[in-house]
Amino acid sequence: MLKIAVLGTGRIGRMHVDNIVAHPKAKLAGVFDVNNAVAQEVAGKHHAKQFSSVEDVLNASEVDAVLIATSTATHADLIEQAVAAKKAIFCEKPIDLSLDRVKSCEQKIKGTNIPIMLGFVRRFDKGHRAVRTSIEAGAIGDLHQVIITSRDPDMAPDAYIEVSGGIFRDMTIHDFDMARFILGENITEVSATGSRLVNNALMERCNDYDTVTIVLKTASGKQCIINNSRRAVYGYDQRVEAFGSKGMAISENHPMNNMRLYAENFTDQKPALMNFFIDRYGEAFNNEISSFVDAVEQGKNPEVGFEDGKQALMLAEAASRSILEKRIIRLDEI
Amino acid sequence: MLKIAVLGTGRIGRMHVDNIVAHPKAKLAGVFDVNNAVAQEVAGKHHAKQFSSVEDVLNASEVDAVLIATSTATHADLIEQAVAAKKAIFCEKPIDLSLDRVKSCEQKIKGTNIPIMLGFVRRFDKGHRAVRTSIEAGAIGDLHQVIITSRDPDMAPDAYIEVSGGIFRDMTIHDFDMARFILGENITEVSATGSRLVNNALMERCNDYDTVTIVLKTASGKQCIINNSRRAVYGYDQRVEAFGSKGMAISENHPMNNMRLYAENFTDQKPALMNFFIDRYGEAFNNEISSFVDAVEQGKNPEVGFEDGKQALMLAEAASRSILEKRIIRLDEI
Amino acid sequence: MLKIAVLGTGRIGRMHVDNIVAHPKAKLAGVFDVNNAVAQEVAGKHHAKQFSSVEDVLNASEVDAVLIATSTATHADLIEQAVAAKKAIFCEKPIDLSLDRVKSCEQKIKGTNIPIMLGFVRRFDKGHRAVRTSIEAGAIGDLHQVIITSRDPDMAPDAYIEVSGGIFRDMTIHDFDMARFILGENITEVSATGSRLVNNALMERCNDYDTVTIVLKTASGKQCIINNSRRAVYGYDQRVEAFGSKGMAISENHPMNNMRLYAENFTDQKPALMNFFIDRYGEAFNNEISSFVDAVEQGKNPEVGFEDGKQALMLAEAASRSILEKRIIRLDEI
Amino acid sequence: MLKIAVLGTGRIGRMHVDNIVAHPKAKLAGVFDVNNAVAQEVAGKHHAKQFSSVEDVLNASEVDAVLIATSTATHADLIEQAVAAKKAIFCEKPIDLSLDRVKSCEQKIKGTNIPIMLGFVRRFDKGHRAVRTSIEAGAIGDLHQVIITSRDPDMAPDAYIEVSGGIFRDMTIHDFDMARFILGENITEVSATGSRLVNNALMERCNDYDTVTIVLKTASGKQCIINNSRRAVYGYDQRVEAFGSKGMAISENHPMNNMRLYAENFTDQKPALMNFFIDRYGEAFNNEISSFVDAVEQGKNPEVGFEDGKQALMLAEAASRSILEKRIIRLDEI
Repeated sequence: MLKIAVLGTGRIGRMHVDNIVAHPKAKLAGVFDVNNAVAQEVAGKHHAKQFSSVEDVLNASEVDAVLIATSTATHADLIEQAVAAKKAIFCEKPIDLSLDRVKSCEQKIKGTNIPIMLGFVRRFDKGHRAVRTSIEAGAIGDLHQVIITSRDPDMAPDAYIEVSGGIFRDMTIHDFDMARFILGENITEVSATGSRLVNNALMERCNDYDTVTIVLKTASGKQCIINNSRRAVYGYDQRVEAFGSKGMAISENHPMNNMRLYAENFTDQKPALMNFFIDRYGEAFNNEISSFVDAVEQGKNPEVGFEDGKQALMLAEAASRSILEKRIIRLDEI
Repeated sequence: MLKIAVLGTGRIGRMHVDNIVAHPKAKLAGVFDVNNAVAQEVAGKHHAKQFSSVEDVLNASEVDAVLIATSTATHADLIEQAVAAKKAIFCEKPIDLSLDRVKSCEQKIKGTNIPIMLGFVRRFDKGHRAVRTSIEAGAIGDLHQVIITSRDPDMAPDAYIEVSGGIFRDMTIHDFDMARFILGENITEVSATGSRLVNNALMERCNDYDTVTIVLKTASGKQCIINNSRRAVYGYDQRVEAFGSKGMAISENHPMNNMRLYAENFTDQKPALMNFFIDRYGEAFNNEISSFVDAVEQGKNPEVGFEDGKQALMLAEAASRSILEKRIIRLDEI
Repeated sequence: MLKIAVLGTGRIGRMHVDNIVAHPKAKLAGVFDVNNAVAQEVAGKHHAKQFSSVEDVLNASEVDAVLIATSTATHADLIEQAVAAKKAIFCEKPIDLSLDRVKSCEQKIKGTNIPIMLGFVRRFDKGHRAVRTSIEAGAIGDLHQVIITSRDPDMAPDAYIEVSGGIFRDMTIHDFDMARFILGENITEVSATGSRLVNNALMERCNDYDTVTIVLKTASGKQCIINNSRRAVYGYDQRVEAFGSKGMAISENHPMNNMRLYAENFTDQKPALMNFFIDRYGEAFNNEISSFVDAVEQGKNPEVGFEDGKQALMLAEAASRSILEKRIIRLDEI
Repeated sequence: MLKIAVLGTGRIGRMHVDNIVAHPKAKLAGVFDVNNAVAQEVAGKHHAKQFSSVEDVLNASEVDAVLIATSTATHADLIEQAVAAKKAIFCEKPIDLSLDRVKSCEQKIKGTNIPIMLGFVRRFDKGHRAVRTSIEAGAIGDLHQVIITSRDPDMAPDAYIEVSGGIFRDMTIHDFDMARFILGENITEVSATGSRLVNNALMERCNDYDTVTIVLKTASGKQCIINNSRRAVYGYDQRVEAFGSKGMAISENHPMNNMRLYAENFTDQKPALMNFFIDRYGEAFNNEISSFVDAVEQGKNPEVGFEDGKQALMLAEAASRSILEKRIIRLDEI
């Protein structure tokens, strides 16, 4: 039984709590949140301990690991503290919006053998993962092209967008990680184009884009296309396609349900696709915890770690610069 | 918070425990199982009480409801005892293999206003339910034909089949309930045909069938076809199709994952479909508990109850007799 | 080049003319129709001969084969005459609505080695045929169950229905032949149920049914379910499913086009499926002519012949009797 | 009846002949090919005239229109001659591989009111066209992104590739036209990236690419991604996706047939998709002729004409230059 304390009991934190509680090899060691009432409710429901501070959590001998689901700005600090306290770490993405802060954190924790897993949950989606597995099994031969379609069901609130760090750091970051996961080879070139088609006024104010296309290339010539939109009215559009010398593997969308209607006035459920990321990737969030528990218990490296978080952020930087400078950016420029 | 005690912590009982623990409006009040070790492990994991007997459970004031997941032969007795103890009841199907025992149980609990919900889980599957909802919303007009395809991924062990009560009582029982759910009208005629194609020797020994087709008809002429097989090598085949004057609604199968492979030698995952009923109907089992919790808390009748269990068993009787007598059986003959 | 004369230049006859004209190994030897104007137009368009009578056609030395696309009542006579004239025969289904007439025709042409092909076009559909081919290749192991769904896009005009010979002889006849094609084994038992749900008044007047379910069984216990409706508002619903010990093969429907729409108010094309039999089975009609040409040129038996026409009609008889007598009919009773 | 003479009776020319012959409003006025034997065979089969020269065709009063299916190098000359002879023109794509030659041809035929239709057949595909129609009907709102996937089933012979003019002029040219058709707005920016992954040696020798990604942008910010490969082992991969403010429309691939297999060792037909362009776009080739016949008979402009041919070639030029200069090319630079 891995005893995990959860830091941050907001929406995502509570979901992780449920997954830990139901997990056969994990136990909820307690919770902490700056919002005392929320933490109390979660603890009460599960007869679990409510810690009074992060320090308490990190000092508690009954805590094997911490799951960091607090706000982004605290992630790097908490990683550094947890490493010092020798607690295994599961941290929600991103490490930080600033590449400099990520690098300073990296310096600080250098040489640690504390397991650190980063919450790039999509790697644990059964369909996306089956694409990767197919490639590794040789089912599609040499990989030539990857197409990642990733569209949110709707624009986040303005207040969120304004501090999000921009579409590449906030949204495409997942797709950059997916590209790395599927390509299995270092990316050398990044070019990007952006448009303001969903909410032009907000995007102009934030100097941001709501509709982007990014083309990545590896040293051997593999190509990866990412296309993003901040709003797909038909639901959460999440597809990964890998094309190679011997075939193609596609991780298809998840319909709202498996009912199909054939009628005179063909009106199916709306939206057509699953809408909420906790629904769409619910099983992946579960698998992710399993993967973390297994890694810690078996002393293996987590499947996705600190370096992956840093690399995805570097790709985001490159994409931003490509739009500014209207040219292909080599990753070694970042 | 509805405080639910779970009787029987075998495979299905433990799954219900996990669903209760994660449910925002339910709490695990404790567990009991004749296998002490198994019950102890489940209780330990969730800091929950391990009761020492059914009586203890039924006498406990902190228990609002019981979930009966013990062996079939005990269901009717436990229902009677729980009604007497005034505990709300969720009982796994079937009530009993014998229609006589079901009728005697019915007599005993007559007049109770204790909520009794029967675990016909498929009614809570999002896709099957969307078919029903479409019909109610008029999307396919007047209902004309229903086709239920229901094939198990593999034959249960011989020892299980031998005491199962036969394919109609054991397996088709779910489909009889689905037929009633989708048709929304009393069934008046039943005809059935059976073959021994999967395991002829076993079926002959048990005087049972592994491959059956049943045709049901309602008073107004609606037709329903059920086809069953004890073994579908490609996985758990579970489809419901409703055809009407204005269209058709189909609840399609659930693929193992949403990855599709297009290759020279097209070899996809095996099996193609989800295989294990707890995976395939995992979400439905969750929804089922929600429905039970809501019914009890809001003082409503559970969506599927004792009478539904009895009616499904009567259809099973009629199907058995149809094969024996090689004729259409009117339900009023049962 | 097989020189084929077409008798009857109505809708189906003209379609066959186009297929013959475009076929690399066939040539249009001429046309005849009792409607002189229509025949003239068809002949003119293709610089082809317009014959003045059936006798002229059958006496013409430049005619190798006749394609009979005249009205049903003339089929048996024309087959007898063409056999006498030693012309290879392609005849649209059915041979006749009366089993007696079919049997007398059979007697008359007994012993001939003139190739006679019957237009059960669905056997030449790529998808349905691939199901058969998969079975022959062992891809699904031993065949256990077949499900044929066959629903017309709309009710034919009353005047047509009144003289159609009833749903089994007019519509299900295709499905009976498909059942024989897929089962590959003699059918021994037939049971049927019928309802009047689409047009009750017309059906009562004609003593006919618009919604039927038929269950067939072979000596070895293979089961086949056919379900028919005279009206599916979403288009021409034509599916064939074969289930066996090692898998399942399904010939799926043909959507109107391959465009899928995911929108807020999900409104796709109507109807969803192809609507017109000449569209849906257009390619099959072409393949059918190819099969006929190849058989005649290579001196092989046509893939579907007189006996198949007779057997399908016998199944129609059995189904009619099953409804009347409310019991399973053994085919050896017909 | 539009009387059409076909110039060039190679593979594509013969297919057009069959479509003309079967078309209710067209008549084959005759054929010409520099290969006398081939032309003779085609003429003989259809009782049609074999012309002895292009001049004969253009002088023939019984010829209303010419269909140019000769080799690419002759297209521009034949267009000029046919315009002079006042024959309506259907010309296979491309007009010429050289943009200069296209511009000189444009000068020469300037001011003509002779209908000229260019054979961008994909515009007549039911699925692709339904995407365009959906956009025009407002079904997906404002258009934001278009994704065109276009992969050939296999590399053409080396000898063909060597004189093809490169992937952009030879293969992507179809996708450039599709992009223009779907976007419905002028393209202002082109960027491209190319790799040599299918046949590196051949591509190096020809200074060509076999795997390319092109990103197009319009003045209003609409984005279009084209991805091409010279070899997709699973068949001819042809998809068009349009994403907008109110939804998404996808023209999906055409499977080899509509049979689906679910088996232990899931082995479906190979290739999975239609393989041969005349099969895949067979219906579109038919619709294309209909569109031409209707335009000429009704005195309307053909749906796709000379200017479309020129614009697609300009996009090909821009893509080539983008790879060379490693930057975004504005279309006004071409």
